[in-house]
Amino acid sequence: MHRTGRGTMSRRGFLQIAGAVGGSTAVYRAAMGLGLLPLVANARPQVAAAGPTPLKVIVLGAGISGLTAAYELHRKGHSVQIIEASHRAGGRNLTLRSGDRIDETGYPQTCRFDADPDLYFNAGPARIPGHHHALLDYCKELDVPLQPFINDNRNAWVQDDAMFGGKPIRAREYMTDTRGFIAELMAKSLTPQQMLAPMTPADWERMREYVRQLGELDDNFRYLGSSRAGLARHDYTHPDLLKPPLSPSELMKSRFMYIMSFGETDDQAAMMMEPVGGMDRVVSGFMRKVGHLVQLQSQVQSIRLQEQGVEVTYRRDGKLVTTRADYCLNCIPLHLLAGVDHNFPADYAAGFTAIPRGKLFKIGFQMKERFWEKQGIYGGISWTMQDIQQIWYPSHGIHRQKGVVLGGYSWDPAACDRFTRLAPAERFELAIRQAEKIHPDYRNYIESGVSIAWHQMNHMLGCAAQWDHDLLSRWFKRLQAPVGNHYLIGDQVSYHPGWQEGAIASAHHAIADIEQRVRELRVVAA
Amino acid sequence: MHRTGRGTMSRRGFLQIAGAVGGSTAVYRAAMGLGLLPLVANARPQVAAAGPTPLKVIVLGAGISGLTAAYELHRKGHSVQIIEASHRAGGRNLTLRSGDRIDETGYPQTCRFDADPDLYFNAGPARIPGHHHALLDYCKELDVPLQPFINDNRNAWVQDDAMFGGKPIRAREYMTDTRGFIAELMAKSLTPQQMLAPMTPADWERMREYVRQLGELDDNFRYLGSSRAGLARHDYTHPDLLKPPLSPSELMKSRFMYIMSFGETDDQAAMMMEPVGGMDRVVSGFMRKVGHLVQLQSQVQSIRLQEQGVEVTYRRDGKLVTTRADYCLNCIPLHLLAGVDHNFPADYAAGFTAIPRGKLFKIGFQMKERFWEKQGIYGGISWTMQDIQQIWYPSHGIHRQKGVVLGGYSWDPAACDRFTRLAPAERFELAIRQAEKIHPDYRNYIESGVSIAWHQMNHMLGCAAQWDHDLLSRWFKRLQAPVGNHYLIGDQVSYHPGWQEGAIASAHHAIADIEQRVRELRVVAA
Repeated sequence: MHRTGRGTMSRRGFLQIAGAVGGSTAVYRAAMGLGLLPLVANARPQVAAAGPTPLKVIVLGAGISGLTAAYELHRKGHSVQIIEASHRAGGRNLTLRSGDRIDETGYPQTCRFDADPDLYFNAGPARIPGHHHALLDYCKELDVPLQPFINDNRNAWVQDDAMFGGKPIRAREYMTDTRGFIAELMAKSLTPQQMLAPMTPADWERMREYVRQLGELDDNFRYLGSSRAGLARHDYTHPDLLKPPLSPSELMKSRFMYIMSFGETDDQAAMMMEPVGGMDRVVSGFMRKVGHLVQLQSQVQSIRLQEQGVEVTYRRDGKLVTTRADYCLNCIPLHLLAGVDHNFPADYAAGFTAIPRGKLFKIGFQMKERFWEKQGIYGGISWTMQDIQQIWYPSHGIHRQKGVVLGGYSWDPAACDRFTRLAPAERFELAIRQAEKIHPDYRNYIESGVSIAWHQMNHMLGCAAQWDHDLLSRWFKRLQAPVGNHYLIGDQVSYHPGWQEGAIASAHHAIADIEQRVRELRVVAA
Repeated sequence: MHRTGRGTMSRRGFLQIAGAVGGSTAVYRAAMGLGLLPLVANARPQVAAAGPTPLKVIVLGAGISGLTAAYELHRKGHSVQIIEASHRAGGRNLTLRSGDRIDETGYPQTCRFDADPDLYFNAGPARIPGHHHALLDYCKELDVPLQPFINDNRNAWVQDDAMFGGKPIRAREYMTDTRGFIAELMAKSLTPQQMLAPMTPADWERMREYVRQLGELDDNFRYLGSSRAGLARHDYTHPDLLKPPLSPSELMKSRFMYIMSFGETDDQAAMMMEPVGGMDRVVSGFMRKVGHLVQLQSQVQSIRLQEQGVEVTYRRDGKLVTTRADYCLNCIPLHLLAGVDHNFPADYAAGFTAIPRGKLFKIGFQMKERFWEKQGIYGGISWTMQDIQQIWYPSHGIHRQKGVVLGGYSWDPAACDRFTRLAPAERFELAIRQAEKIHPDYRNYIESGVSIAWHQMNHMLGCAAQWDHDLLSRWFKRLQAPVGNHYLIGDQVSYHPGWQEGAIASAHHAIADIEQRVRELRVVAA
């Protein structure tokens, strides 16, 4: 009988949902203080000042984790050296400006943007959420000014060949009309008969009221359009005119793209930030402190654990140099590390090739005119189901003449391959043809382009580590823990690969462990 | 029988919803090009250059509408004079900085913020959506740089005495957990049996998948928490730990505050902007062009329609001055205009007192430390059901030492009264006590405060005009149309009161009408 079928819910059933996470919940809540859960961040390790015999530490790789480790140890008086294979520091934190070299194997490029501080392209990380405390603390400490980054813009476009014959619609129309129709259906489906005692009529009313608000239904719980979708005319000398709702059957054809909840997710929800002038201002901030410790274009050839310490050999200017350190912190990408001579235990080194790397492809275009602003789009993202996936409009430089647009951003391996097998000019052409479905006159505004295939970049040859549940349980602790005095670091050895916060967390974890060992040694020595 | 009851919906029924807006829809869609609806903005009037006999125009009030009208006419060579009663231009566009005077009747105040360009408080309008084209065009034309304004911040707090014993919870937890539980209930309520042919099993699956994504339900359509609510720890050296979901019964007690959909609405949806340095940079932009035409502290005493033109008498430095113009554009608040001597037709003047004015109260506090940033809150709004209603954190000056917080913002008449009957120091105390429910140590950070009661400000004595459906149909056209050569302007005579875009629209409307009349006169004369 329907009244007791799956369509029914009692208050008791409802409350059981809350209990489903287990008995620890109540305890946890009580301990943390209900509703006052802190945003627990990675704890910055408290490194003691170096004594008369500072540690000698070698850091392999000048990515964000390496720079973090070097900064924390150097400022406490330890002796730090950073060995970096590439011509630049920063790892995947890369901002492209006029004249910059893009070190892609096979397709080296040079960025031909105008020499203008506003015209830059964040080829790697490009946004920072408010709970990435560790990175934000460094931005503050290292004088890296931040500005809001617009991630979600309801005036931007959504395009899917499956709906409306492929014509783009405004994100606000797509989201509002879809939600409106679904809410109407829900309101119709939720009947008081479905509620069992002691669910009260008041509960039922509230529930329905919530659904009404969700979809902005009328008093009869029908969706007849909403100003949330934008008005048909924003000319306020005339009465407001609602846009007619889009066809629900067309909306239903769309693949309910994740943009519907993109702006809700932990890391992507409002608000986000970016450093003023480009994400690599973070790198510059660290480099102001430890830049003199970095040796660029020095490729590691061998890492040898010793009785006490680590010996590293690298090639610089054609010569091999061997150096010895008490500790080694290593953010060389694991899959590249597999090709380096070493004497690690086999069951540890096997992890280097066990974790697959992602692909990631981005395109940036300098546009001679900020044409999107004439459409009411200031910052944010247009979405398409095509390979370019996203078009980002810059949040900075509003109303200036030119701007740099992200013209494609994919981490789908097949889509990445379709781009990266092409030469740069052909990649641009492909991205332009796709973008024309959203902006028919897109091509006319393009002055120059850059493309980044992280899986083809020299000294990288892959993007973020692709951990899954099985890999995590099998490898994570093993790779996170030191072997002798050697630590793997980098976002690759964090629970947040692909984010700078993960890289920093890994460095903090290693430093805290070293600090602990040093303290224990002191106790033993005393 | 339930299968044909209100819980059922056929595809046909679904499509009828779309048709409900009437037959004009299809035509409209066809005309506009499906999915390519432009953001139609108020059309900027094309004013012809003044001929050998420029118009003489008097503008009453140097608010945004008056400044717009003066700018448009002056730059085409017409002779413009602006008469302003107050000591400053801008009307309700008011940004308070160190030393500024707050001209409240009975409670004059002086802003005691530090003299620092970052420490300002937008006492009137404070944000601009991307579809306010007319205002945005002026920002561009008048060199008013803009930056993103963070309106929605999921890391901010929600506080309601009705839930969780009044303890605040993060907006992202409130929204995610509420939506999760409701989505679970919906998913349980939506049964295939409720779908009539030709609704297909595929439709049913899609619908349920949408609900699953909406609430981030698990594979069994249960809500067991979501990372959208934020993780219990954002320490990425450990596995992700979901926050246990909040109690649904507590969430149900809350009044489903409109913040659940605040960030979805037409004018408030992401993204929004603010002028760099304060909203009154818009006023400064206009004043750079027409400031020399403005006479401050000049109070209008009489407006007399004449055979051709308008005669205005105002008091300045204790003396009465009478001036005559071909046209008069008047943005004096309607309810104050009722107290001015005039010879308007009685059925027109009756409208001056027919439209009630809103109340609006705001408080700004200079904080000696940006304590909210330590909680991961960068910009955005915390919400409470108390009288202060909102706490805004500044989107600019991230990581600087100090910041100005909006400590209260109410347009509820009773709440406004509870504040404005108090002296400023008592208002601050009341606002602090309420804010302490969200930030227990709030008081410790406060260095100085300002309060604005727009309904008590001199030369204003009310906030936005409060039109309703009946008032609009009875009065709007009458008041929007000229009487002789006199035009009412201001956001008060627009379909968007309380927004600068409405003020500009009203000025454009009046100017376009004058332009049309002048053109017709030329044709007659020729």
